[in-house]
Amino acid sequence: MSVDSQNTSPTISLFEADALQLDSGASLSPVHVGYTVHGTLNAEASNAILICHALTGDQYCADSHPVTDKPGWWSRLIGPGKIIDTDKYCVICSNVLGSCLGTTGPSENNIETGKPWGLDFPVITIRDMVKVQAALIEALGIETLFAVIGGSMGGMQVLEWLASYPEKLFAAIPIATAAKHTAQNIAFHEVGRQAIMADPNWHGGKYLEAGTSPAKGLSVARMAAHITYLSEDALAQKFGRSLQDRDSVAFGFEADFQVESYLRHQGSTFVDRFDANSYLYITRAMDYFDISERTGGRLADAFKSASHVRCCVLSFSSDWLYPSPENKHYVRALITAGVRVSYTDIKSDFGHDSFLLEMPEIDRMLDGFLQRSSEAREI
Amino acid sequence: MSVDSQNTSPTISLFEADALQLDSGASLSPVHVGYTVHGTLNAEASNAILICHALTGDQYCADSHPVTDKPGWWSRLIGPGKIIDTDKYCVICSNVLGSCLGTTGPSENNIETGKPWGLDFPVITIRDMVKVQAALIEALGIETLFAVIGGSMGGMQVLEWLASYPEKLFAAIPIATAAKHTAQNIAFHEVGRQAIMADPNWHGGKYLEAGTSPAKGLSVARMAAHITYLSEDALAQKFGRSLQDRDSVAFGFEADFQVESYLRHQGSTFVDRFDANSYLYITRAMDYFDISERTGGRLADAFKSASHVRCCVLSFSSDWLYPSPENKHYVRALITAGVRVSYTDIKSDFGHDSFLLEMPEIDRMLDGFLQRSSEAREI
Repeated sequence: MSVDSQNTSPTISLFEADALQLDSGASLSPVHVGYTVHGTLNAEASNAILICHALTGDQYCADSHPVTDKPGWWSRLIGPGKIIDTDKYCVICSNVLGSCLGTTGPSENNIETGKPWGLDFPVITIRDMVKVQAALIEALGIETLFAVIGGSMGGMQVLEWLASYPEKLFAAIPIATAAKHTAQNIAFHEVGRQAIMADPNWHGGKYLEAGTSPAKGLSVARMAAHITYLSEDALAQKFGRSLQDRDSVAFGFEADFQVESYLRHQGSTFVDRFDANSYLYITRAMDYFDISERTGGRLADAFKSASHVRCCVLSFSSDWLYPSPENKHYVRALITAGVRVSYTDIKSDFGHDSFLLEMPEIDRMLDGFLQRSSEAREI
Repeated sequence: MSVDSQNTSPTISLFEADALQLDSGASLSPVHVGYTVHGTLNAEASNAILICHALTGDQYCADSHPVTDKPGWWSRLIGPGKIIDTDKYCVICSNVLGSCLGTTGPSENNIETGKPWGLDFPVITIRDMVKVQAALIEALGIETLFAVIGGSMGGMQVLEWLASYPEKLFAAIPIATAAKHTAQNIAFHEVGRQAIMADPNWHGGKYLEAGTSPAKGLSVARMAAHITYLSEDALAQKFGRSLQDRDSVAFGFEADFQVESYLRHQGSTFVDRFDANSYLYITRAMDYFDISERTGGRLADAFKSASHVRCCVLSFSSDWLYPSPENKHYVRALITAGVRVSYTDIKSDFGHDSFLLEMPEIDRMLDGFLQRSSEAREI
């Protein structure tokens, strides 16, 4: 079973006449995009917000997930009367290129062969993902987005919008992200990829044809990554050395500690909702991300056409995946480029995943920024 | 081929009459120990230094490794005229219980079955390892060690000596370690163990009988662990986003970046010299390590008989595996217990592995402490 058959959101077919030209030099036609819309586009089409999801996220930001039945990953922020108010804004979220919930990716069939793409799928970049989003927005009749918002890899997409399509933006909110992947970021991704590719059920990427799934490898990849989403403090507070359903250690290799049980659960539930090859492709896109590369290392130059965009940046003090200095780095570049930026480093013990958690300071910052920006936009 | 067949150091058989009683309640008899000795024990047997190795270390601290032919892992510090001077001291280093280079562990044959132990080997603890070291020291005719020295898991053994056999110590040097494993430490180890156990060539631990080796799983475990031995700064300085033998990314899943190539190399060379089950057992022993558990959470009480021991503690500012606060935690407990402690947090960009690197401040601290202590001991 291909994961994308589980998609229940609308899907649109793009790039039918003109193929999508990828950074790699390859092209794709057509490109399917799974997306969700909450709220109504106003007559001026001035109230659209694009939400960009993270590595293993999806378009189900506000409604329950078709596989897990869990609430949308940002449902605490998005909805009627909420901070990203769907009574006021038209909120769009699309599954990224290369993923597995309705958007074209390696688990989809290659129409030329009638078989799943597997590793024949072209390697993609964050810029390619954003190119697809820009085409979706255009197809939905939106010339200018009121705002583009995203955390983690979603934040990379926001930065890419600022670099590639600033003329289509009124406001932008990158959260807990970076303008390039560091050696340590790449290293963790490489461990995850090697774990997947070491699984014999991966079959050189052709597991869908083989009727198997590299579930164990993908689970290990998820476990390793999940540690980077938390902080040492968060793990200490949440689990410490507490034991799982026992009074003393069992002198064996079962999950004695709660943190082991938690990680195993994270790994085993992930494989039900995510495609292993999509994990390879999306992590690769993140590793390749370095906006300053296209302007000879001068990051500010990449944002030189974005000076009219209102920007709000949030980072988290305990985030060691995209730490505050990485966020400050692109904030400085945006300021150098003349962009009006509000930046807050929010004190939090919960690490990178803070952006997904209940945190009053996130709410206050987003609420204030969106209110003032919507007044300026006269929404 | 069993890894322990590659041992070329002397081996001693201990616990032949009285079995080794393990913390788990199980017992082992006999226990083989692979060890090395450099220098000569003086007439008073007062100049012996025990070196304790880290997770994947071994007894080859000062001479070349029988498998890799690389210089001993601390050969820069140990040798004639060096800081740990083998013209003056008798330096002993033994392979820990559960490892795979001459000391009894899961890859050795169980004499009752004639087959490799595999997962039938009893789960061991750091205290069990130190119990074996104490028996070795006694067998070598040494009543009191001049010093016990070790970094990382070697430092845990030093702390265990301070808690369990303080009467046999004159001085102790724990480096870059902790008195307990944190949730994050356990989490990283669990990822490594799951990677090994996910490899079908692991065969439930019976790979030696099956004539296979879970090399891919062990390699992934090593890669994940290796990231924790370095620091983000070290990775940035050493590799950054530099590409491996190419001018631009290849849009594929080969090792585009130097850091990927480096990690793959770390993984693939490790499997030639280390046994996968030993990796499971030793990581488990580290996870179980929490000295304060035996004294109701009061760490200082565990050291209450060690007040006569001279202690020197080193930590490294960029170590995020056993960060400075974890080291300060046991330093405070030692001080509370009345132990005379010198403590230095050495500023270093190179992370946990700093203790294995050329670093003049390490040399100065060790040299000064050993000189003063040897004068006090009248060596």
